[in-house]
Amino acid sequence: MRRMQNSVDGYRHAGLCRILHALATAQVSAEALTGAYLDAIARENAERKAFVFVAAEAALAEARASDQRRAEGRPLGRLDGLPLAIKDNIDVAGMPTAFGLVGAARAACRDAFVVERLRGAGAVVLGKTTLDEAAMGTLGRNPVIGDVPNPLLAGRVAGGSSAGSAVAVATGLCAAALGSDTMGSVRIPAAFCGVVGHRPTVGELSASGLASALRRVDCVGVLTRNVACAAPLLQVMAGYDPEDPRSRRRRIPLAPPDWQAARIRVGVVADLDCLGVDRVAAQHFGTAIGRVAGLFRQSTPVELDVAPLEIATARRAALLLMEAEILAAHGSALSAASPRLLGLLDFAKRCSAVDYARAARRLDALLVQVRRLFERFDVLLLPTVPMAPPLLGSEEPGNLADLTALASLGGCPALSLPLVEGHGLQLVGAPGSDLRLLELGEVMEAVIGAESASAAA
Amino acid sequence: MRRMQNSVDGYRHAGLCRILHALATAQVSAEALTGAYLDAIARENAERKAFVFVAAEAALAEARASDQRRAEGRPLGRLDGLPLAIKDNIDVAGMPTAFGLVGAARAACRDAFVVERLRGAGAVVLGKTTLDEAAMGTLGRNPVIGDVPNPLLAGRVAGGSSAGSAVAVATGLCAAALGSDTMGSVRIPAAFCGVVGHRPTVGELSASGLASALRRVDCVGVLTRNVACAAPLLQVMAGYDPEDPRSRRRRIPLAPPDWQAARIRVGVVADLDCLGVDRVAAQHFGTAIGRVAGLFRQSTPVELDVAPLEIATARRAALLLMEAEILAAHGSALSAASPRLLGLLDFAKRCSAVDYARAARRLDALLVQVRRLFERFDVLLLPTVPMAPPLLGSEEPGNLADLTALASLGGCPALSLPLVEGHGLQLVGAPGSDLRLLELGEVMEAVIGAESASAAA
Repeated sequence: MRRMQNSVDGYRHAGLCRILHALATAQVSAEALTGAYLDAIARENAERKAFVFVAAEAALAEARASDQRRAEGRPLGRLDGLPLAIKDNIDVAGMPTAFGLVGAARAACRDAFVVERLRGAGAVVLGKTTLDEAAMGTLGRNPVIGDVPNPLLAGRVAGGSSAGSAVAVATGLCAAALGSDTMGSVRIPAAFCGVVGHRPTVGELSASGLASALRRVDCVGVLTRNVACAAPLLQVMAGYDPEDPRSRRRRIPLAPPDWQAARIRVGVVADLDCLGVDRVAAQHFGTAIGRVAGLFRQSTPVELDVAPLEIATARRAALLLMEAEILAAHGSALSAASPRLLGLLDFAKRCSAVDYARAARRLDALLVQVRRLFERFDVLLLPTVPMAPPLLGSEEPGNLADLTALASLGGCPALSLPLVEGHGLQLVGAPGSDLRLLELGEVMEAVIGAESASAAA
Repeated sequence: MRRMQNSVDGYRHAGLCRILHALATAQVSAEALTGAYLDAIARENAERKAFVFVAAEAALAEARASDQRRAEGRPLGRLDGLPLAIKDNIDVAGMPTAFGLVGAARAACRDAFVVERLRGAGAVVLGKTTLDEAAMGTLGRNPVIGDVPNPLLAGRVAGGSSAGSAVAVATGLCAAALGSDTMGSVRIPAAFCGVVGHRPTVGELSASGLASALRRVDCVGVLTRNVACAAPLLQVMAGYDPEDPRSRRRRIPLAPPDWQAARIRVGVVADLDCLGVDRVAAQHFGTAIGRVAGLFRQSTPVELDVAPLEIATARRAALLLMEAEILAAHGSALSAASPRLLGLLDFAKRCSAVDYARAARRLDALLVQVRRLFERFDVLLLPTVPMAPPLLGSEEPGNLADLTALASLGGCPALSLPLVEGHGLQLVGAPGSDLRLLELGEVMEAVIGAESASAAA
């Protein structure tokens, strides 16, 4: 098989649809493709720090089984043979879930619901990817391995907490990856590393088997090389799971092409200054808006201010809930946590149950305010991150997740499209409008991509 | 009008459908009917303690306006002219919301969402009904007026917390009443007072304008003289309310007669001993089950044990959340609370945010267990209350809400049908199955009612 390596290597950076087509038409075998990813991981991971655990033998065995099924004309499902990377706070049976914590992790005894669905459709798991300690961070930093370097911008961080998944997708170490997003953990590293990140509506994908940070906000999300890659993964993973208290029987079918881009009511966030968006980020955002504006012929995008929502205050309220929940859910595993994490968690220990209830009420109030916004708009556009990726080793900026927290705390789906230099264009939709958002994102991606390409030329 | 009093008085105790028919066909005027209820309240309320606030003039004015509309052939909606009572933790514009607390209550400046819907359909609000202090109680007791007496069983309590609403319906002081149900506050007094009580699926009816006890569990519910009265009220009140973070766009239409009683999978709770159900309550339950069993011809009811759910432990976990939330939501209004309530609330002040998160996780776990039950069953039958109504002035039994908490903490709709001597038969369905449950309840009510009538004859 390894003699095919050179031609196979071309698929490493391809989009999901092209890879699936190649697998389905036997242009490439799952074993060769998996081998190519594993070889690249073996060569590059020491520098990339994308994976914390690689399941080489198991992945190759799964890939061979997939090839066998394809050869017999009975593939398991549409993802048969697709090599994926899984963030290391999502359980994969037989692999340790370390959750970014120091100390020995125990192997999970069963797949998380979403992993079970992916494997049920034939996907191959390459390994587990790096995250911030207890998923509490925005830089891609943890006490075990330090900072995950940005693959595009030398000397800068990859962003977190789904750092390894973003890096693996950006550098061709997997076909696509799962991340998780509480306050922005899929979208921030996606923007910083130049890939697409999608956070679904809460409850659309089951969170059972995802290590708990803040259950009312936690989401499994996907990191992919382009927007079109996201939908096939979501459609395989979506489903009602009685084990997840927030999983719901589908309210809105996940495939309604019932919108016309030209008629969509678009809100463009205008008060970037108040949100701490720096000059360069605002410039990139403005350029992107200029490019996509032509899509909305029958309805002019409307500028709106979101500072009255006081997202930063609500995010701090949510932080108390996260800290309390991490302590309640992972108590004993935290004994070896870093002083930074222990300091954060200590805050929750000093707060009372009434403080918790007050913070929860603050989040309810924000949810209602965001719902009201979506009575006027179908989609909001804002930057994903307020600045370029910080330098390696620098302090964590306090407002890195403020732009992503809007969707998180509003229960909304959100999509980050990569712009240049680690910036991102964020689309936020009403709860349940995931597929609309992906379709709109695909149209926008084409416009932005074409322009970037011509700018580069 | 008052000369019609004698014939009008006959409608005071009638079911909703008969009253609405009489109003629609001008057999009775809204003014005369409202007058009859107000006269009865004036005569009996000092003894009944059902109302804490009566809006006589406003109600009569609304009733006259309704008659005018009917005369002009343009009624507002199907409830036009229907006199209702509202539990005093639900806002009615212009009337004080005292929430069972000592001290001056402020008049609400707007109707709660559900009240707005009822009035939008023409309903007349007679006044506000008695509840336990801060809705934290199961007896129908508060420091302002003492115990609400049971209208059927001399020397016994009416049950709480929707005590006044249950009494008003049982004694013909209103056509129907709104209550609220966190751990069983609609169903317990409904059983004790011999009326029907329905707790809907969380999120089906908006809780905005309902004083917060525990938002993830709080429900507005209805108390009526028979099952058929409940559906018209629910259908008027149901609707998506962006102001309530838990309100959802309807997932399951509220009118699907898509079941056949004969094929329904029925679970009958068998481990009554472990749940603290006393001998007499178990006997009444057994008799009721014997009567309804004939309805299920194609599927035999299956006995099941619910003790493994440890509802009492979960209910205590929920109590911490309630106490913390009541403090966070009603802080300043609690300064004059009774020593009993302050004692309860003090517990939450001494608990940490981590204790809160742990308790919330316990409730998530129970929700999942209850969901699993509804993979095997369509409806569960159990007693509403574990004992007859306690004596006036007696201590509050610790387990009075254990049988109702199952549905509350499972997010399920539940219906209590009156049996004899203050006992109740409880039907619990899967989330969203409210109308099925009401239809099934109507069939069962007919069977139980016929048998009781023949037993009495």
